[in-house]
Amino acid sequence: MENFKKNAIVGQSGGPTAAINATLSGVIRGALASRRIDKLYGMRYGMEGFLDGKTVLLNDLFCDGEDKLTQLEHTPSAALGSCRYKLPDPMSENEKDVALYETIFRRFAELDVGYFFYIGGNDSMDTVAKLTAYANRAGKQEVSFLGVPKTIDNDLAMTDHAPGYGSAAKYVATTVREILCDCAVYTVKAVTVVEVMGRDAGWLTAASVAGRAQGAPVPDYIYLPERAFDMEGFLSDVEQAFLRHPNVVIAVSEGIRYADGSYVGEGSLGSQLDRFGHRDLGGAGRVLVQAVRDRFGCKARSVELNLSQRCAGHLLSATDIREAVAIGREAVLRAERGESGVMLCFKRVSNDPYRCEIQTADIREIANEVGAVPSHYINEAGNHVTDACLDYLLPLIRGEFAPTFREGIPEYFVL
Amino acid sequence: MENFKKNAIVGQSGGPTAAINATLSGVIRGALASRRIDKLYGMRYGMEGFLDGKTVLLNDLFCDGEDKLTQLEHTPSAALGSCRYKLPDPMSENEKDVALYETIFRRFAELDVGYFFYIGGNDSMDTVAKLTAYANRAGKQEVSFLGVPKTIDNDLAMTDHAPGYGSAAKYVATTVREILCDCAVYTVKAVTVVEVMGRDAGWLTAASVAGRAQGAPVPDYIYLPERAFDMEGFLSDVEQAFLRHPNVVIAVSEGIRYADGSYVGEGSLGSQLDRFGHRDLGGAGRVLVQAVRDRFGCKARSVELNLSQRCAGHLLSATDIREAVAIGREAVLRAERGESGVMLCFKRVSNDPYRCEIQTADIREIANEVGAVPSHYINEAGNHVTDACLDYLLPLIRGEFAPTFREGIPEYFVL
Repeated sequence: MENFKKNAIVGQSGGPTAAINATLSGVIRGALASRRIDKLYGMRYGMEGFLDGKTVLLNDLFCDGEDKLTQLEHTPSAALGSCRYKLPDPMSENEKDVALYETIFRRFAELDVGYFFYIGGNDSMDTVAKLTAYANRAGKQEVSFLGVPKTIDNDLAMTDHAPGYGSAAKYVATTVREILCDCAVYTVKAVTVVEVMGRDAGWLTAASVAGRAQGAPVPDYIYLPERAFDMEGFLSDVEQAFLRHPNVVIAVSEGIRYADGSYVGEGSLGSQLDRFGHRDLGGAGRVLVQAVRDRFGCKARSVELNLSQRCAGHLLSATDIREAVAIGREAVLRAERGESGVMLCFKRVSNDPYRCEIQTADIREIANEVGAVPSHYINEAGNHVTDACLDYLLPLIRGEFAPTFREGIPEYFVL
Repeated sequence: MENFKKNAIVGQSGGPTAAINATLSGVIRGALASRRIDKLYGMRYGMEGFLDGKTVLLNDLFCDGEDKLTQLEHTPSAALGSCRYKLPDPMSENEKDVALYETIFRRFAELDVGYFFYIGGNDSMDTVAKLTAYANRAGKQEVSFLGVPKTIDNDLAMTDHAPGYGSAAKYVATTVREILCDCAVYTVKAVTVVEVMGRDAGWLTAASVAGRAQGAPVPDYIYLPERAFDMEGFLSDVEQAFLRHPNVVIAVSEGIRYADGSYVGEGSLGSQLDRFGHRDLGGAGRVLVQAVRDRFGCKARSVELNLSQRCAGHLLSATDIREAVAIGREAVLRAERGESGVMLCFKRVSNDPYRCEIQTADIREIANEVGAVPSHYINEAGNHVTDACLDYLLPLIRGEFAPTFREGIPEYFVL
């Protein structure tokens, strides 16, 4: 019976989210309950740390711990640490590239790893796809590779949504609602531009419309990267909004682009490229603010929601966290059943009542594909989102999952 | 018995906070229960709206409403609207100035106002002081003037703290704790500078130390405006921090200044003057980030906590809101007892267990004075805060007071 068991390894990769630890908890719960998994290793700092030999045995850490697992589920960011690490082309004949893959697979063999779980976004699914491809190429079938999605951007293909999006969206929706309260107090003409994360997909910015479901105020205009941004059209929108009230509030994605494809925020302070060649955006709001000041001579300010969008553990969507745990557990079940080279996905089978099923999709169909906001979620003028978008969003942000507070602040898990 | 009753009026002024509506609720609760107050008027948009004839009768709005009052207590920002309005010198002989005061007092007489409550910060207490002074000068004793404090900056003199600070501090403390989670995931050298509100006083930035009470991580360094900022000293601090770990997190007040008195963030994008001549700061973080990049060539980013610090109704300190309501109620009791020309204050009589008494102080001792962080709350090197500061802070941020959520976001009161 014993030799029927294999060890498993789990890593977290890419930008942190408020739900990536809940998925880790799901994998741990699944592994602890599994009859096929013996030890569960955690990679410190993703593949990068793994290659440096940094692993931690998770069974011992969590064997006595429903409390610890619950705390982990509330804790934002990646408890194991993360990385932004790009594997070389698995078909490469380059000696160094082949040696790297061989090192990885030798490490797997040393640890007797039979199951590999990687929790992350597009770039991480690229890693899972490459490991799968190399294993196929080299005829190494000992390890099953499973990707488990997470991204606040919600831009993964083949899944209705990704864990992490619901909590980030709840944070954006709540914060924008509160900023609308704040902006309503003065009678002086002013424009507030709220800049929301989202390089290629406007999902998170779209969440700023949530107040509409309550009949509460929402931003006057919402601009997503899915539509070309037109500065004159924007200024004309602001002019229209001033006819209705003095306090204009705008939500924009950091990644809005002009028709020629250049980023509105490009060239602003703080532009740096990351290892995947993605530009560290930010600044679109400041560019719009300057344009408003120039045109209307009024008070204008830019508010970047910034890191809290992805790490506000104090404001989690209960739906999101529940699903994040469930998809982690399901990943273990799928691995036990022999699936490999797949990413776990959500398929929404019903919206009212909301119900999602967990499925798997071929990892090759996901890696580096962008799941953009569909066109019927954006209004014709391209300056707001539709009720269909709201219907999609609401189930994902419903329910609260408050952490335990101690001495006034939440108590989070630290490895 | 009837002619023994007078009407009252209440206004909110200055920057919004998450607790200013709780104080409004306290005044409403007090007025509804009062045997001396008949009608309670609300000024829309503070003194500015009042001069435009914008008032609203609050009795009718809230007479049936414990639910409405509770919702109001959760609602951030100023439900009545606010203003930044500076009254002229009450001793001025200038005809226009005198006419303005006469208009105000005529409006009071028309509304049969006997009690005036103004909820605000330093600038608003300036208004209360000037109305009191003009009434004294002109021999108009019909109206009692009471200031009720609010400010997230906690920079009001004569009071242990001001309502609004506790909730803002809880937001800063929680968010910084979460940013520390977020920053811990990578092994790449990086500096994150969290810029916190606070022009002249570092109270809010000091709250970023709260995690210390849990034994959780806190920022490597904390810089407050109470100490002259030295760029070389800062860079040397960062160098020291890199010896300990790759992820350096710094908290700074927006108002940090060099020894020559100039603001570190001065001249950065977005500098505008408000009507009181205060500079709309912001940008100190970006200046530090640039200095870090220049010196260390590493990744560096600035996170401005921005508006949410003062309007995060979803993350309130229960202590703060309870006290905010209590001080509003007490203002009504003090007015009934004939006090005028005063601001309500907290006096901390015990820290463990925490207990505050509500007192009053002469408004002339408060207006435009700044209550700075005392020197024993700051460490000798001027780059962190002490345990004494933590002891002061903790009781103010303890306890949670969550709003009611509907459709995924908090439901807030709208007038």
